[in-house]
Amino acid sequence: MPLLIRNGEIITADARYHADVYVEDQTITRIGRDLEAPPGCEVIDATGKLVFPGFIDPHVHIYLPFMSTFAKDTYRTASTAALAGGTTTLIEMCCPSRQEDALAGYELWKSKAEGQSACDYTFHMAVTRFDETTEAQLRQIVADGISSFKIFLSYKNFFGVEDGEMYRTLTLARELGVIVTAHCENAELVARLQAALLAEGKTGPEWHEPSRPELVEAEGTARFAAFLEATGASGYVVHLSCEPALKAALAAKARGVRLAVETVIPHLLLDKTYAERPDFEGARYVMSPPLRDARNHKPLWDALQMGLIDTVGTDHCPFDLEQKELGRGDFTRIPNGIPALEDRVNLLYTYGVSRGSLDLHRFVDAASTRAARLFGLFPRKGTVAVGSDADLVVYDPHYRGVISAATQHVNNDYNGFEGMEIDGRPEVVTVRGRVMVRGGQFVGEYGYGQFLRRPTAQAQTAVLEEAPA
Amino acid sequence: MPLLIRNGEIITADARYHADVYVEDQTITRIGRDLEAPPGCEVIDATGKLVFPGFIDPHVHIYLPFMSTFAKDTYRTASTAALAGGTTTLIEMCCPSRQEDALAGYELWKSKAEGQSACDYTFHMAVTRFDETTEAQLRQIVADGISSFKIFLSYKNFFGVEDGEMYRTLTLARELGVIVTAHCENAELVARLQAALLAEGKTGPEWHEPSRPELVEAEGTARFAAFLEATGASGYVVHLSCEPALKAALAAKARGVRLAVETVIPHLLLDKTYAERPDFEGARYVMSPPLRDARNHKPLWDALQMGLIDTVGTDHCPFDLEQKELGRGDFTRIPNGIPALEDRVNLLYTYGVSRGSLDLHRFVDAASTRAARLFGLFPRKGTVAVGSDADLVVYDPHYRGVISAATQHVNNDYNGFEGMEIDGRPEVVTVRGRVMVRGGQFVGEYGYGQFLRRPTAQAQTAVLEEAPA
Amino acid sequence: MPLLIRNGEIITADARYHADVYVEDQTITRIGRDLEAPPGCEVIDATGKLVFPGFIDPHVHIYLPFMSTFAKDTYRTASTAALAGGTTTLIEMCCPSRQEDALAGYELWKSKAEGQSACDYTFHMAVTRFDETTEAQLRQIVADGISSFKIFLSYKNFFGVEDGEMYRTLTLARELGVIVTAHCENAELVARLQAALLAEGKTGPEWHEPSRPELVEAEGTARFAAFLEATGASGYVVHLSCEPALKAALAAKARGVRLAVETVIPHLLLDKTYAERPDFEGARYVMSPPLRDARNHKPLWDALQMGLIDTVGTDHCPFDLEQKELGRGDFTRIPNGIPALEDRVNLLYTYGVSRGSLDLHRFVDAASTRAARLFGLFPRKGTVAVGSDADLVVYDPHYRGVISAATQHVNNDYNGFEGMEIDGRPEVVTVRGRVMVRGGQFVGEYGYGQFLRRPTAQAQTAVLEEAPA
Amino acid sequence: MPLLIRNGEIITADARYHADVYVEDQTITRIGRDLEAPPGCEVIDATGKLVFPGFIDPHVHIYLPFMSTFAKDTYRTASTAALAGGTTTLIEMCCPSRQEDALAGYELWKSKAEGQSACDYTFHMAVTRFDETTEAQLRQIVADGISSFKIFLSYKNFFGVEDGEMYRTLTLARELGVIVTAHCENAELVARLQAALLAEGKTGPEWHEPSRPELVEAEGTARFAAFLEATGASGYVVHLSCEPALKAALAAKARGVRLAVETVIPHLLLDKTYAERPDFEGARYVMSPPLRDARNHKPLWDALQMGLIDTVGTDHCPFDLEQKELGRGDFTRIPNGIPALEDRVNLLYTYGVSRGSLDLHRFVDAASTRAARLFGLFPRKGTVAVGSDADLVVYDPHYRGVISAATQHVNNDYNGFEGMEIDGRPEVVTVRGRVMVRGGQFVGEYGYGQFLRRPTAQAQTAVLEEAPA
Repeated sequence: MPLLIRNGEIITADARYHADVYVEDQTITRIGRDLEAPPGCEVIDATGKLVFPGFIDPHVHIYLPFMSTFAKDTYRTASTAALAGGTTTLIEMCCPSRQEDALAGYELWKSKAEGQSACDYTFHMAVTRFDETTEAQLRQIVADGISSFKIFLSYKNFFGVEDGEMYRTLTLARELGVIVTAHCENAELVARLQAALLAEGKTGPEWHEPSRPELVEAEGTARFAAFLEATGASGYVVHLSCEPALKAALAAKARGVRLAVETVIPHLLLDKTYAERPDFEGARYVMSPPLRDARNHKPLWDALQMGLIDTVGTDHCPFDLEQKELGRGDFTRIPNGIPALEDRVNLLYTYGVSRGSLDLHRFVDAASTRAARLFGLFPRKGTVAVGSDADLVVYDPHYRGVISAATQHVNNDYNGFEGMEIDGRPEVVTVRGRVMVRGGQFVGEYGYGQFLRRPTAQAQTAVLEEAPA
Repeated sequence: MPLLIRNGEIITADARYHADVYVEDQTITRIGRDLEAPPGCEVIDATGKLVFPGFIDPHVHIYLPFMSTFAKDTYRTASTAALAGGTTTLIEMCCPSRQEDALAGYELWKSKAEGQSACDYTFHMAVTRFDETTEAQLRQIVADGISSFKIFLSYKNFFGVEDGEMYRTLTLARELGVIVTAHCENAELVARLQAALLAEGKTGPEWHEPSRPELVEAEGTARFAAFLEATGASGYVVHLSCEPALKAALAAKARGVRLAVETVIPHLLLDKTYAERPDFEGARYVMSPPLRDARNHKPLWDALQMGLIDTVGTDHCPFDLEQKELGRGDFTRIPNGIPALEDRVNLLYTYGVSRGSLDLHRFVDAASTRAARLFGLFPRKGTVAVGSDADLVVYDPHYRGVISAATQHVNNDYNGFEGMEIDGRPEVVTVRGRVMVRGGQFVGEYGYGQFLRRPTAQAQTAVLEEAPA
Repeated sequence: MPLLIRNGEIITADARYHADVYVEDQTITRIGRDLEAPPGCEVIDATGKLVFPGFIDPHVHIYLPFMSTFAKDTYRTASTAALAGGTTTLIEMCCPSRQEDALAGYELWKSKAEGQSACDYTFHMAVTRFDETTEAQLRQIVADGISSFKIFLSYKNFFGVEDGEMYRTLTLARELGVIVTAHCENAELVARLQAALLAEGKTGPEWHEPSRPELVEAEGTARFAAFLEATGASGYVVHLSCEPALKAALAAKARGVRLAVETVIPHLLLDKTYAERPDFEGARYVMSPPLRDARNHKPLWDALQMGLIDTVGTDHCPFDLEQKELGRGDFTRIPNGIPALEDRVNLLYTYGVSRGSLDLHRFVDAASTRAARLFGLFPRKGTVAVGSDADLVVYDPHYRGVISAATQHVNNDYNGFEGMEIDGRPEVVTVRGRVMVRGGQFVGEYGYGQFLRRPTAQAQTAVLEEAPA
Repeated sequence: MPLLIRNGEIITADARYHADVYVEDQTITRIGRDLEAPPGCEVIDATGKLVFPGFIDPHVHIYLPFMSTFAKDTYRTASTAALAGGTTTLIEMCCPSRQEDALAGYELWKSKAEGQSACDYTFHMAVTRFDETTEAQLRQIVADGISSFKIFLSYKNFFGVEDGEMYRTLTLARELGVIVTAHCENAELVARLQAALLAEGKTGPEWHEPSRPELVEAEGTARFAAFLEATGASGYVVHLSCEPALKAALAAKARGVRLAVETVIPHLLLDKTYAERPDFEGARYVMSPPLRDARNHKPLWDALQMGLIDTVGTDHCPFDLEQKELGRGDFTRIPNGIPALEDRVNLLYTYGVSRGSLDLHRFVDAASTRAARLFGLFPRKGTVAVGSDADLVVYDPHYRGVISAATQHVNNDYNGFEGMEIDGRPEVVTVRGRVMVRGGQFVGEYGYGQFLRRPTAQAQTAVLEEAPA
C-alpha cells in the first residue's frame, strides 16, 4: 500500500524543507509539493511535525551471554523499544567469546533475530580470536553482508584480542574494505587495577570507575589509532567517554588516520556520581568505559557539535536489578550496562537540540546519517531521498514527557534516566513504508524487520565507479 | 518555463540516488522516479551524469582596488568563469579600505554587481575600521541582508583592524548573529619581516613566503580564536595554508570555540617552489598567506577529508602579468592573487575525488553545502531538495581536459594551474532553473544573477522555532 | 673579616655534600673538609643545617607608582624582608610609564636603591615605549649593566607595548644579547572585559579574575612566543598562572623557542576563592594575572618539578588595606599585588620539599640558580662555589613557625599567607660574606647591598671563548 | 697518593669557576684557590683546560649474546674506550633473555666485569620475564645495589615483556624505589611489519627503518607513560629517536608522569640515509630504534637544550662487519648497534657546545649529572664537590682531531662516525683520584674499576630525612 506523508518539515543532515513524501514498494519514490494521493494510499498528516530519516543505533547488545548471565532483551522487546524511540535500524554486536567458533556464533546471533525483529538490523562481527580458522570464517561472514568488525582491547581471555590479533584483524579488514570498531581500554591495566582495589577491600560500584580510569581508555584509543595508521585500515572508537581519549582520537584524525568516534548517550548526560549512589543503587550505573567525572561533558558535547565526534550510540545492554546483585561485594561482577536504546533519540534531541546548542542537522547526522555512511547502509538508510528505504520518523517537537521504567518497552526493571524530561517524541515511525508506531504507540509486526546485508568499501567504490558510466 | 532533469545521479552532502528533478518558478518542486514532463517543459537528459547542488565559492574578489591597481575581473567576466566552472553562487569580499566609508563602500561594491552578474552573489562585509559611525553602518548593512563580516589581522593601516576593533566587531557580530571571517596573519610581524628582507636586498618573489612564515599565520589564527572564545562570536578562518595554523584552529575547535576553517585550492595543489621560479615567473604565484612548503599538503588534505577543514574556496583575485610587474624589484609590491574561481570545482573533483581519496559527499559539502550552512544561504542553496533554488550542476565525470589560460573565461593572461589535467566538468549548469551553461559553454544572461539577502543566526533560529508550530 | 661556615650540608642545584665553606674578601675561596679557621675568622657552626646559595627573587616591585598610588616598600623595608626570608639578591622591575623618559626613569629607580639596600639588587628595565630615543637610551642602560628587559602586553597606554614595539624591543634585545621578560596578557581583551563587567554592575574583587580569564594569558603567552620565534630573541614569561598558558609555553619550548617560564608563589598556593572572600577581603588577593581556579595547582607544581617551569618568583608588590580601598566599587582600581618577598623561600621549601614532592635540588634551582643563569648573575650568584660571592643561607629545617603580618618585615598591614605553617627558616644569611641575618633576625646594614652589573649574552660568550685559552 | 689539579676551570651542571681541586683517599676533599700540594702529592696543571665531573654513559652493552652472536667488546676494551673518551662510569644493560634465570644472568654479567674493568660500572637489570621467581630474584638483586630495571616493549619472546609483566615490574619498582628504563617500540607492529617487508622481497638494511617506523616508537612511549601513570612508578625512555615519540614523552611529563628521556648520540648526528648506503654498507648503521629522517634532528637538539630530553647515552653495542654480514639478505638478522661509547662526549661537545648552541652546563648535565641523579649515583658521581668521588676529566678544548676506527679503543673494525672532526678531547681522566688517561692515552689499570651499589629512592630519601638531624 502506498503511503503519503504530507506537509511535514523534512530534516536531514544537509537539508531542511517542507514537502510531501511519497512511498511505494517500501521505497521513497517522490518528494515534492502538493503530491497527489492515489486511491488506496495511506495519508499521514505531518503538519507541524518534523520528518527525520529513521534513526540508527550503531551500538546495541541484545543477545549477550556475559558475566555469567544474559542481557534481558529479546529482539521482540528490543525492536519494540527501538521503534518507540525512533530507531528504525540497529546494529547489534555479535559477540561470541574467544572460546567459541566465530561462524557458529554468527549463525546463532542471526537466529535470535530472524523472524523476531520489528526493525531492520545488522551486526558488527566481533573478532575475539584471530587464527587461520577465524580468518576463513570472517571472509565468509563478510561475504554474507557484514562489513564491520568489532574488537575489544579489554576483556582479556574472554572477548579481548592481543596486539598481534589486532594487527591481523586490521590487515584483513583493510584488504576486504571492512571498518573495525573497537572497545579501547587496556586489558592489563583494568585487570590489575581491579585486583588491586579488591585487595584493598574496595568492592562497591563506586570503585568501578577508578578501576578503569581515563588514562586506560586514552591508552587504548592511542594504541588502536597507531595500529590503524600502521595498517591503513579504517576504524571507529566505540563509546568514547572522556577528554583524554578524545584528545588521542583527535590527534589521530589530525594526522590523517581514518578514525571515527562514537560516544554514547549515558556519557553525555550522566556522570560518575551516579555510580557512587549509596545502597548499591550505583550498580545500575555501571558500564564500561565507566561514567566519568562531569568535567568531561563539555568537551564531549563540543566535539559532537563540531563533528569531531561522529556518532551517538547507546551500548544498550539491559541487566535488571537482580542481575546487578551478582556484583554485590565485588564490583567486577556487576553486569555492565545502562540501557538506552529507547531513549537515545529523545534525550539527544531534548538536551542537545531543544535545551542545548546542538545543531539540528548535526543531530540527524550523529544519530543516523553518519552511522549509515560509515557502516555501508548509505544511501539506503540515513537520509530522506528518492530511492532510499522509507524509514521515516514523524517527530512531534511539542510533546512533553518524562522518562520512566514504568512506561518503557525495554525489558528491564529500571531506567538510568528515570525522571528526566523529554521535549519531543516520535509520533509516527515507518520502516520501509510500513507504519510501526502511531500516536507514539507500537503498532508493528514482529518479523517484519530485515537483516541488512552491507557492502564492503570496495563494493561501494565499485558502485561509484560504475555509476555514471 | 519548467525544467526537468532526468535520470541523473543526484549527489548531495548526505544523499546519493538516481532520480528526476523537476523545477518550477526557479525552485525544485519535485524529486522522484519517472516524473512526467508537462507540455512546454525543457527536459535535460542527465543519464550517466552526476547532479550536484550548485557550488558556492565563499571567498572571491572581483572589484578590488589593491596595491595601487585593480583586480582584472568584472562581474561579467567573473560570473561567466564561475558558472563555466560550476559555481552558481559567489561571495565577494566587499573591501573598502580603512580610510573609506563602510556604507559608501558597500553601495559601491553592490553597484558593480547589479545588473551585471550572471550568477547569484552576496558579500562578506569587510570591517576595516570600527568606530561609532561604522557600527551604525554595519547594523544597516546587516539589515540589508549581509550576515557575515570580514576582518584582516594583517594589512595594517589599509584593511587591518587592531585588537580593540576586532573585539568590538566580534561583540557586534555576536549580538547580531553574524559570523566573522578573518584573514589571520600578524600585521606587525609581516611588516617588520618584509622590511628586514628588503633591507638585505632580498627583493624577488621567492622572498614573499619568508616574509610571512607559517608562525605568522599560526599566531593570527590563535589570536582570532582567543577573541572568539572571549566574545562568544562565531568565526571562520579564510585561506588557511599550513599545519601550524591548522593546529591552532583544531585546538580551538576542540575546546568548543565556534570556528570554521577554509582552505583554498592553490594551497592544496601548489607549493612555494612555484613562487621561486626564475625570471620573475614566481610573481604569478604570489598570494597571502603564501604558497607553503609542500609538506603541508598532506595535513591539509587529511583535515579536509576528516571534515576538520570545513570549506574549500579560492581567494580568487586576478592580476595580470603587467600588474605583477609592479613588484619587480620589491616583492611587497607584487599584487597578490592566484585566480581560481573557474577551476576550483574541477580541480577539487579531479585531485580530491577522482585521483585522491576525498569522499564524494565531503567534496560536495566542502565546495557547496557547508558554505551555505555557515553563511545563511541554507537551505536555499547548497543542497538538492524540494523548495531549494534550482541551482544544479550536471557534471560529466567522463570529460577529460587540460587547464589553460587560452581557454579560460577569467579575465587574465595566465593561469596558475596551466597544464593540469581535469577529470570532469560541468555539462549543464542552472541558476534558479535557468540554463546558464550547456555543453560546457556559457549560454547565460548577464544581470540574471541576484543579490542574496542572508538572514542572521537569530533570524534563522527564529524560523526554526516557529517552523513546527 | 674571613668567615668559616662549618659542618653544614651544602645543597646546590647539582650537588649535596657535607663540607666547610671558607670566605675571604666577600668571596668563597675554599670548600673542604676540616678547614682551619685562621685567627680573626668568624666561625658559624652549621651542624644539622642546610647551606644553600643565597636565593634570588627575579620579580620584585619596590618603588612603584601605580594605579594612582605607590607600593609601600622602600629598599630598607624590602631588603630587610628579603634577607629575613633568605633572598640575598632581588631583581626589581624598573617601570617608568609610557609617558616617562626611560633613562630618567632608570636613574630614578637606581637612586631609590642606592645607599639604602641591605641586599644586592639589579633591575629588569621595562620598555614601555619604543622609539628612536628609547633605543639609544636602552643601549646606554645595557652598557650600564642591565642585561634584561621587561615588556607588558597588557596595561595599554600605561606600561603596555604594541606588537610593533615588541618586535623592535626583541630585535634590539637579540642584537645586544639581552633577555626579555614579559607580562603576557592581551591588553584589549582585559580592557574590554573589564568594561563589560563594570557595565553589568559587577564591581567587586571577585570579578577581577573573570575580567582576565585564562585564555587572555594563553593568548599573550602564545603571541610572545611567536615574536621570539620570529626574531630569535630569548624570552621569559613572568608570573605564569594557569594550564592554558603553560601549554602555550611548553609548545613553544618544544619547537625550540628560547623561552623560560616563571611562576610566582601565590599562584602555587592560593586560588581564586581567596579573591571571592566577602566584605572586600578579596581585594587583598587581587594581582594580575589573577589567582586562578585551584585545578591549575597540580599542573603548575608538576611542571615545576619536571623543570618545565624554570623559576619561582613573587611579583612582590605591597599595597596596604587603605590602598586596596581605592578599588571598592570598582575592582579595576584595586592596586594589584600580593606581597611575598619575605615568605617565598620558606613557603616553597615547606609546601614543595617538606610536604610535597619537589626535589630539593630543583627547589634550589628554581629559587636561585636558574634565575642567576638566565639573568647573567651566574656564576657570581646562584651556587656555592669557589670564586662565587659568599651569599649563603644556613637553613634550619627543624624550625617550625607560622606566617603572620604581625611579625613580617615587609611594610604592609596584611599578609596573604596569614596563618600558614612553615617547616624551616633561614638561621644565618650572608651577603658577600657579611652576616645579615643571625638567629633568624635581621642584623644587617643598610647600604651594604650592591647594584649588580650584569653582562649580556655576548659578553658571557666572550668570556667563555676566552676562558680556556 | 693525594692529587692536586691546579688552575683548571671547573664546569659542572650549575657552576663555573677557576679553582684547584684536591683529592685524598679517592675523594675530593677540598676545592679552593691556591691550594697547597703536600709532599708526595701528584700535581696536574690544568691551566687553560676545563675540568668536568667524570662523564656517565647510562646505556651501554658489553657482554651481549644477541641475534645469534656476541657483541665484540670485553670490559677491558670497553672500559679503555670509555675512559679515553672521558666516561668514568658506565651503566651496562644486564640482559638475560626471557628463557634464562634472572639471578643467574645477573651473576654472569657481574662476573664479566669483575676484576676486568678500568672504569666504574653498574647495571640496569633487565626484566625479560616476570613471575614469582623473578620477583624474588629482583628483590635480591635490588638489595645487592641495583636500583634500576630495564624492560623491552619490543623483542617479543626474547627480551620483551607483555603488558601484564610491565605492570608487575612497575608495581614492584614503585614499591622498591627503583626506576624503570624502557625500550619503547611495539613488539607486534615491528614483527608484523618486518614479515610484510620480507614477504615483499625488501631485505636490505634500508628496510630496517620502515619496519619500525616512528609511530611504532610513539605508541610504545605513550603506552609506557600510561603504565607509569597508572602505577606511580618512575620511568626513563631509552634511545628516543624521533619527534612523535618525543611528543608522547612531553605530553606525559606535562601531566606529571615521572618520566625521563634519553636520546643517544647516533640519533643526534646520523640519519636514515646512512642505512640506505649501497653495497650493504648501510648495515653498519642498523640499530633500534633506527636512524630516522633528518627532520628529527632539530626537535631532538632543541629538546636537549631546553632540558626536555634529560640525558645523552649511546646504546653502545659493537658488532663487526663480519657479524653484520649475518643479515645480508634479511635485514632482520643484522646485529643491531652503532658503537659510540668512546666518542659520545667529544661528539656532543663538538657538535653541541663548540659548533652548536648547546649550553655548556646542559652538556655536563646531560652527559653526566642527570644520569647520576636519576640512577642513584649522586652525589657520589656527576659533580665536582667535596665528598664526591674524584672522577675528573681535564678537557682540552683546543685539541683538534678526527674520529677513526683506526685509532679507536673499541673492539670493532668500523666506526659509524668515521671522519668526523672533534673540537676537544680529555687530556687527563681520573677515576677516584687515580689517573687513567694522560695526554689522551690510556694509562690505567684493569680491575681498578668498581661495581657501584646504588641506593633505591627510599634509601636516598631516608638519607635526606636523617641528614640534617
